[in-house]
Amino acid sequence: MLTYFVTKVRLRRALKCQSANIWRHTRGHSTLPTNQDSDQVRTLLQLFVDRHFISPGEINVELFKRGTSCCYGPLGLKLRRNVLHQWWSSMTGSRAQVFGINTPSSSGYAVMDGWGHLRITEPDDIKNILNQKELSKEQLIHSVHMCLQNSALLRTNVFQGALEHFVPSFELVNRKLPFGLAETGRCFQRSKDGSAEVTQASLVWFCSARTSSQWLDHWARQRLKWWRKFAIAPSDFSSSDVPQEELEGPASRGIKIFYNFPWGQELLEVLWSRGDCELLHIHKGMRSKLQFPQSRNGRKSVPHVVSITGNIDRGLLALLSNSLLLHKKEDAKQQLQQRKVLKLHPLLAPVKVALGIGRGATTELRQVCEGLLQELKEAKISVWPGYLETTSTPMEQLNSKYDEMGVLFTAVISDNTLESGLLQVRSRDTAIKETMHISDIKNFLCRYISAADNM
Amino acid sequence: MLTYFVTKVRLRRALKCQSANIWRHTRGHSTLPTNQDSDQVRTLLQLFVDRHFISPGEINVELFKRGTSCCYGPLGLKLRRNVLHQWWSSMTGSRAQVFGINTPSSSGYAVMDGWGHLRITEPDDIKNILNQKELSKEQLIHSVHMCLQNSALLRTNVFQGALEHFVPSFELVNRKLPFGLAETGRCFQRSKDGSAEVTQASLVWFCSARTSSQWLDHWARQRLKWWRKFAIAPSDFSSSDVPQEELEGPASRGIKIFYNFPWGQELLEVLWSRGDCELLHIHKGMRSKLQFPQSRNGRKSVPHVVSITGNIDRGLLALLSNSLLLHKKEDAKQQLQQRKVLKLHPLLAPVKVALGIGRGATTELRQVCEGLLQELKEAKISVWPGYLETTSTPMEQLNSKYDEMGVLFTAVISDNTLESGLLQVRSRDTAIKETMHISDIKNFLCRYISAADNM
Repeated sequence: MLTYFVTKVRLRRALKCQSANIWRHTRGHSTLPTNQDSDQVRTLLQLFVDRHFISPGEINVELFKRGTSCCYGPLGLKLRRNVLHQWWSSMTGSRAQVFGINTPSSSGYAVMDGWGHLRITEPDDIKNILNQKELSKEQLIHSVHMCLQNSALLRTNVFQGALEHFVPSFELVNRKLPFGLAETGRCFQRSKDGSAEVTQASLVWFCSARTSSQWLDHWARQRLKWWRKFAIAPSDFSSSDVPQEELEGPASRGIKIFYNFPWGQELLEVLWSRGDCELLHIHKGMRSKLQFPQSRNGRKSVPHVVSITGNIDRGLLALLSNSLLLHKKEDAKQQLQQRKVLKLHPLLAPVKVALGIGRGATTELRQVCEGLLQELKEAKISVWPGYLETTSTPMEQLNSKYDEMGVLFTAVISDNTLESGLLQVRSRDTAIKETMHISDIKNFLCRYISAADNM
Repeated sequence: MLTYFVTKVRLRRALKCQSANIWRHTRGHSTLPTNQDSDQVRTLLQLFVDRHFISPGEINVELFKRGTSCCYGPLGLKLRRNVLHQWWSSMTGSRAQVFGINTPSSSGYAVMDGWGHLRITEPDDIKNILNQKELSKEQLIHSVHMCLQNSALLRTNVFQGALEHFVPSFELVNRKLPFGLAETGRCFQRSKDGSAEVTQASLVWFCSARTSSQWLDHWARQRLKWWRKFAIAPSDFSSSDVPQEELEGPASRGIKIFYNFPWGQELLEVLWSRGDCELLHIHKGMRSKLQFPQSRNGRKSVPHVVSITGNIDRGLLALLSNSLLLHKKEDAKQQLQQRKVLKLHPLLAPVKVALGIGRGATTELRQVCEGLLQELKEAKISVWPGYLETTSTPMEQLNSKYDEMGVLFTAVISDNTLESGLLQVRSRDTAIKETMHISDIKNFLCRYISAADNM
């Protein structure tokens, strides 16, 4: 057990390494078992419902467990936004030239494997055909066929959009390679129950044929590093080369990134080195618009494509599962209890600080909370207004709740705060309480979070 | 013509009012005409294509002009992200209790007006039915009907999701009113060509029956203020009450927010005071879960709903149109030329600063640019790597291009920078050049942008 205590003096001295240390190194001894254990899995999923990461309901929980889009509650939405924000920062903030694009999720025109896609239909159109009594069976079949063929296609991935957008982007970078097009968005895939929605985060990277294999390795390393940055148990994220016999479509190489869930390994992200044939196919007859002069010999070539496609919904489930720690402890009556702590990375935690009130004149304490809440909100720090809870829950119970929500710190405003300006701040990761002046808490939190970013 | 010059000394003194002043008050004399002028409209739309806000192609431009989702290019995506970010900040950063949620864009279960929705179909399923030769015409019609009925519905708005999510959120706030659920996302609507996608930003506000009309007015004021905050010509945004005879569904009152495009007024956002019947309908038989004690008389009531729904795609078009200014000027040969400046609000501008190189040793200057680029990226300032342009375009031409992109400042690194650390910074809004030390530019930009935020 780490007994290190975050004092303000020490904080200023060595904050850079502390925050990540505290967060990752206090993970205790008992993590979730990696072998299948349906009770544990139920506990895990129920906690995400109880703490408003996802909406209740058996179907919704099942969608989430499958790694598809589901109804996210307030905490789940914030976590999702934080994860997507980190993804965009890592993509567009890097040295590499990466541009974001945004394309519709349906398209009216034909794509390569048109009949594999789900389609948007106007049921009334088909019903109108079915109601035309004068049509023969053959005419009816033909009309329904035509109606389906003219309906819009829903995308199964965001990759297609980047290829279609290639030409203007290529002009934008003055036909210089390498560069990338990033997009995040909902895709529609078939599932055993019909259709399923998935939030994809995709980078399509354009480079020379000669360097494409190196770039594939580069991006696989980057992506694995990115997932592990946010993990308490980084080794649960792993990558492996796709065997030759499992390569898809035109791909010459592939790398997959997996997460080791309690119920087994599942795919988070896949990277393919795809060559130039898809780009040539989509921009038929426009070869000149795709070409760039190779520096060595002056021969004109077409860029090669490396695709990096992650499933953000399953990523959320992986990050949540990875963060949940179970501590066994004995309560006052010597009964074994489980303390659950959701140790989400400081950058990802949906709530950074909860404000509660202790003993004292409620009205006045609430006013202090309101003021602090506004100050923290203005500094873009996500706050939980714990002081609004009507039920007089004991502090220990509230702390358990905040630990399960992944709240980094709990600040308690009491009588003492009104007199001396001091409040008590409890850390999720150490469970240790510290006294701090109310005017210091904003800077303390800002520095704590940005220190975790720089690890 | 404003001849005010941003010196660093003055900047420190009165930065708070300057940035917005410069941005809004230097809009010159000739704005786009508000009467229909198809040439002007073409100019406007072509500029958004040329400057990578939207992808080229007649269909895509038409989708954008209609206010539906289209293919956004790199600058359009950044603008879209900035607008959505501002929307979320204004919703969740306010004093009001607003939680974000995220729901799938399709649902398997029936909704109120199920047959009005577009549906996701698996064309193979219908084709399989059509291919069953043994089926009679009647059996065939029946089977296709059933297949359509069981297919997932695509949402036409995000309002439904918030109503479905009401119960857990109500528990979260301890059954205290008022509170709101915010969501942004793609919706699918019918259009004359089949289906159209629209990005909605929606707040569903739950309050007591007694206060619902006041809240409707409150949110209408807030929303109009929000749009106008980013406008150069705020009066182009307007609101008006919906006449009694145009009220939709259960709404007892409605307010619409419009933008006055060169081709006429179009709807940006609509607010309805909707009563409690939809909430009761969706949660049939669960009245007890919807009730809250009215403070005055202790009688139990069901919350009333106020919905605020904006079209972000049309909002982008409105903000872009509003920002585009045409200055007439004579060139060296005394020919009348048009200077186009896209005066996007500093918070919304997709690129805050472009880095260019002047006279000097290219390799060394580029190294300086690379360093500065990284420094600015780390401070989350969006930079344009103008120094990568291969063609030796005259500076004046580059400035015109950056003005059309809405780039706030252009910094030129030259010989002089290597010697003295000084570089030239040109403002989009004043077209005035200032000399600044390279170590000051980051702070200058940060303060300029945050000053515009606080206006």
